[in-house]
Amino acid sequence: VAALGERLLIERIRARIPPLGAPEVGPGDDAAVLGSIGPHALLAVDMLVEDVDFELTWASGADVGWKAMAVNASDIAAMSGTPRCAVASLCLPAAAELELVDGIVDGMLDAGRRWGAALVGGDLSGGPTLIVTVAVVGESAAPVLRSGAGPGDVLCVTGALGGAAGGLLSLRNRPHADDLPPAELRLRARLLRPSARIEAGLALAEVAVAMIDISDGLAVDLGNLLDGSEWGCTVDPAAVPVDPDLAILRDARGAPVDAFALALTGGEDFELLVALHAEDVDTAAAAVRAVGLDLTPIGTVHSGGRMIGDKDLDDIRRLGWEHLRAT
Amino acid sequence: VAALGERLLIERIRARIPPLGAPEVGPGDDAAVLGSIGPHALLAVDMLVEDVDFELTWASGADVGWKAMAVNASDIAAMSGTPRCAVASLCLPAAAELELVDGIVDGMLDAGRRWGAALVGGDLSGGPTLIVTVAVVGESAAPVLRSGAGPGDVLCVTGALGGAAGGLLSLRNRPHADDLPPAELRLRARLLRPSARIEAGLALAEVAVAMIDISDGLAVDLGNLLDGSEWGCTVDPAAVPVDPDLAILRDARGAPVDAFALALTGGEDFELLVALHAEDVDTAAAAVRAVGLDLTPIGTVHSGGRMIGDKDLDDIRRLGWEHLRAT
Repeated sequence: VAALGERLLIERIRARIPPLGAPEVGPGDDAAVLGSIGPHALLAVDMLVEDVDFELTWASGADVGWKAMAVNASDIAAMSGTPRCAVASLCLPAAAELELVDGIVDGMLDAGRRWGAALVGGDLSGGPTLIVTVAVVGESAAPVLRSGAGPGDVLCVTGALGGAAGGLLSLRNRPHADDLPPAELRLRARLLRPSARIEAGLALAEVAVAMIDISDGLAVDLGNLLDGSEWGCTVDPAAVPVDPDLAILRDARGAPVDAFALALTGGEDFELLVALHAEDVDTAAAAVRAVGLDLTPIGTVHSGGRMIGDKDLDDIRRLGWEHLRAT
Repeated sequence: VAALGERLLIERIRARIPPLGAPEVGPGDDAAVLGSIGPHALLAVDMLVEDVDFELTWASGADVGWKAMAVNASDIAAMSGTPRCAVASLCLPAAAELELVDGIVDGMLDAGRRWGAALVGGDLSGGPTLIVTVAVVGESAAPVLRSGAGPGDVLCVTGALGGAAGGLLSLRNRPHADDLPPAELRLRARLLRPSARIEAGLALAEVAVAMIDISDGLAVDLGNLLDGSEWGCTVDPAAVPVDPDLAILRDARGAPVDAFALALTGGEDFELLVALHAEDVDTAAAAVRAVGLDLTPIGTVHSGGRMIGDKDLDDIRRLGWEHLRAT
């Protein structure tokens, strides 16, 4: 599967799945809409794999558990939903310490409390590596899909981008540093303890035309938002909100990092990318500000090509995070 | 974690999870009841790990996909529920063949169609070994819990036991045999293509006092049914329905296998173990027969110890399947 890569494999899998009759929505959105269970029920699943999504040299069990819950809550946020219940599946190597398992459970519970998801069940198995899979059921009064953006819509993002990728660089370059400046600690927290933008997603429910969470980098997820439509976009590079904490970061050789590149192609910020009618942008920004976040217009949807500044989105997209890529 | 073992680790994890307020039920049952989503919504999750739950030398991708869906549907069956929707999480080694992935997806879709679960989404990751995790959302008009059996109740099982364990022996002893008698092929199918007893679970909904699916062997799951209560049981060994196809099976040295031991401690038959008031047994058996299965009384619940014949249940229980056991 490595030769094909994640995106094409997902397309291949999706082509095998017969179209769902109403009232279900899925696959292909952040979460599925379970029309047969209730008009507003949502279901998402996400898995974290040791040495792919995290390393135990720099992530604690509690970090892993928190994140496994948070990334699913983020999928629910991207539907303008609220998490309600979660189940977890743990694959544990025989040598795993009990304290590691305790930490994972506590991290899941902490994140579940933060966003309203009760841990209602799960499954354990032995296996060669630590894998934490969480599935979350949520609810939304009016689920916002990925699809639906059209010409004239304004693209906006919550918060700032690139911080989680900066945190990963920091952890890899200086795993054992214990005298880090606050900005670098915040970058690490962006990676290790991500926030799901539940409140922002709810604030956007009335006006969002299309929405996705930015888990694989702005370039990849902007592509995902527009895929399946005939529309293009122009993003103003100067408008993209870059995490200000990245200014402090140096690479392994001591040079400043390319913060803008991290903002475009770094994954795991779990901010929301939303398309809005132009006349709704001010209202939406005020609503998001009321829950403590900025909402920044970064570009527009139109009938032309897909560009970030003078670069083709698809060229940048290939630099984003992709599972299964042969390296 | 290997020193503690699966059962004690589950107890340890459960102790960390604060009691759920109504309307949720979970963890600790076959599936959780998601009261906040709807009075009848159920959620289950189960994972299959390569070389723990299956080997690709004897299971095809379609077998693995079918089983990943079926074991979750079985959890829904044990709540007297009907599957509705499912999401799947695939962890794929880079060297995995595309045809393997196609087979897994097709197997999940086939089993989903059989029991009414639409595949509505999923997640892909790279990793060191093949792992398929499925979460199923279902519905039940009146969910039957594991707990609730009391003195005087009659314990009954659907179908016959031990066949899946026999199928595993057959596959391990003669992986490449191509001239197998029909009985041995049926044993293999019990393991590779298990049935979820959805129709039987629904037929029992009105009268079942407590119910569980037999995934880890009769001894283990009978213990699970009674754990948390103060009650004991007596099971009549002669009454336990042993899969008749086991009569044909020989072990690696050509000796007949101990079919009764497989029926008690072999896992993965996915039959239902149900407690009924004595006066409801005939009605229940007729209802289950109407959907094509036998329902066999095997013992009673009482205030004494837990015995299968003259043996202590807990002694036999230790021989049942347990993930994470140090071997």
